[in-house]
Amino acid sequence: MENGAIDCVPATARILDGKQLAKEIQDEIKEEITLWTEKGNRRPCLRAILIGDDAASKTYVEKKMIASESVGIDSDTINLPSDITEKEIIDKIRQLNKDSNVDGILVQLPVPEHVSERNVCNAVDPRKDVDGFHIINVGRLTLNMDTFIPCTALAVIELIKRSEIKTFGKNIVVCGRSKNVGLPISLLLHSDARNECPGMEATVVLCHRHTPPEQLEIYTKTADIIISATGVVGLIKAHMVKPGACVIDVGITRITTPAGKTKLVGDVEYENVKKVAGAITPVPGGVGPMTVAMLMKNTLKAAKNLATPPEQQ
Amino acid sequence: MENGAIDCVPATARILDGKQLAKEIQDEIKEEITLWTEKGNRRPCLRAILIGDDAASKTYVEKKMIASESVGIDSDTINLPSDITEKEIIDKIRQLNKDSNVDGILVQLPVPEHVSERNVCNAVDPRKDVDGFHIINVGRLTLNMDTFIPCTALAVIELIKRSEIKTFGKNIVVCGRSKNVGLPISLLLHSDARNECPGMEATVVLCHRHTPPEQLEIYTKTADIIISATGVVGLIKAHMVKPGACVIDVGITRITTPAGKTKLVGDVEYENVKKVAGAITPVPGGVGPMTVAMLMKNTLKAAKNLATPPEQQ
Repeated sequence: MENGAIDCVPATARILDGKQLAKEIQDEIKEEITLWTEKGNRRPCLRAILIGDDAASKTYVEKKMIASESVGIDSDTINLPSDITEKEIIDKIRQLNKDSNVDGILVQLPVPEHVSERNVCNAVDPRKDVDGFHIINVGRLTLNMDTFIPCTALAVIELIKRSEIKTFGKNIVVCGRSKNVGLPISLLLHSDARNECPGMEATVVLCHRHTPPEQLEIYTKTADIIISATGVVGLIKAHMVKPGACVIDVGITRITTPAGKTKLVGDVEYENVKKVAGAITPVPGGVGPMTVAMLMKNTLKAAKNLATPPEQQ
Repeated sequence: MENGAIDCVPATARILDGKQLAKEIQDEIKEEITLWTEKGNRRPCLRAILIGDDAASKTYVEKKMIASESVGIDSDTINLPSDITEKEIIDKIRQLNKDSNVDGILVQLPVPEHVSERNVCNAVDPRKDVDGFHIINVGRLTLNMDTFIPCTALAVIELIKRSEIKTFGKNIVVCGRSKNVGLPISLLLHSDARNECPGMEATVVLCHRHTPPEQLEIYTKTADIIISATGVVGLIKAHMVKPGACVIDVGITRITTPAGKTKLVGDVEYENVKKVAGAITPVPGGVGPMTVAMLMKNTLKAAKNLATPPEQQ
């Protein structure tokens, strides 16, 4: 069918199963790492820095480390106390920068208030910056040069590509302008496919907290793809979605149900939107697992780049 | 009037006179430089590098240098032959980087085909990068950190601000996604005003060559501001413009009239759009002169930054 899957209107949306896709990607990475080590290379090595004892951060990092280890990445977390100085954190990062046995360095955000997030992100060697937060990598992404793309943004792009959702000349509404998610997604979606880091050639409408709700609705109603990354529960409702559109939910909010249970929900009114959309990601099980897989992808990329002399890259 | 000038619908558009505005800004800069030198500082110093003998590039650089000199900036052009190697260009740039009497360095683009534009832009000391093309300054702009904003993008922003065109929560269509113009304009327009380099809080629709014409029209018809930076003559027509909207024309194309004369025209069908728009920039005499003024602004900023010890910045 010439117009592709998202152009027809099914009775209920195709579920874009991020968990399943992430599993496939992890299997691919695992295989690639096996080939890599069989050639005599050491395993890719990832080090996470976790500052303080925020429970959510701890859970996230653990999840990433267990998953990375499972595909063959040597993964470990360095725990630092919350009262550590910025200088001590940066010294620790510099030590990892110098360590030729380390390929990827990830500092779990947020950092404590007395520490500059920007200084910490810029301390990571750009070649080991698997989160893509170093200023040089942000510049490279903006210019569509080969770089480390922030994992959540890369997860969305990979999900779109692997689900064969068309983007060329399509209308895409991105809700949320955060520097680590909404903005890099917009940068990748709008840009030219002929660049070193290929763009997706879509027209992008970048909406945010100051987009009036009635205006947001006007934009989403004509969107071929809606990507919501705001943390506003229930922002995207069924009547705002064009029949057959693709809806990607990057929001993850922990809520308490009337029955007193905690539950993860996204920005999209899933059950209702599912009846209108052509394709939709669930929360949980959509973008989340893909994000973890992208961290592994970036770590393997870092390992291969670092093992290759610059003149051969 | 609470809604400001652009919300009412005049019989004909207010002309945003970039030439006049640029003159005002240059007068301000001249005064600031006088105060600066009276305090015992040397004049700000700008060096342009012009490679080869492209007539248009030569004219542009000359114009910039004459204007800069007129406000008190020590301005000079370094002419290099078109067969010069990339290494020789970069050596020349490094020499200027090291020269404590030079504040701003500008490499006139395009560079010859055998030279990497990116390598040349990245060779300029980011603190002297008055064009804002260094990868670190691109990263800083993307993250809304204080930086050198590319002159044309800054010209558009300054024009909007000084004309008191409102942007908060407004719909802005940007046509053209070039890394030096359309994209930085979009980055500045969509982002948060509370940042170090304040954003304009607008909803931004970024359109380009692959936005279908009928779709572009749907977007422009509801836009409060249309900014066109494509070089496509006559792209923006009267029926595409919402009555009262502000239209900013960044395009400059040299055409030959039926009478055989050459003439500069923009992307906008000026005479017709003027009857519908609330405010409009002419071509020439709109964004162009403002761009030259922004180069001086950036040069003075570089001079002041370089004269201030880092701990006092």
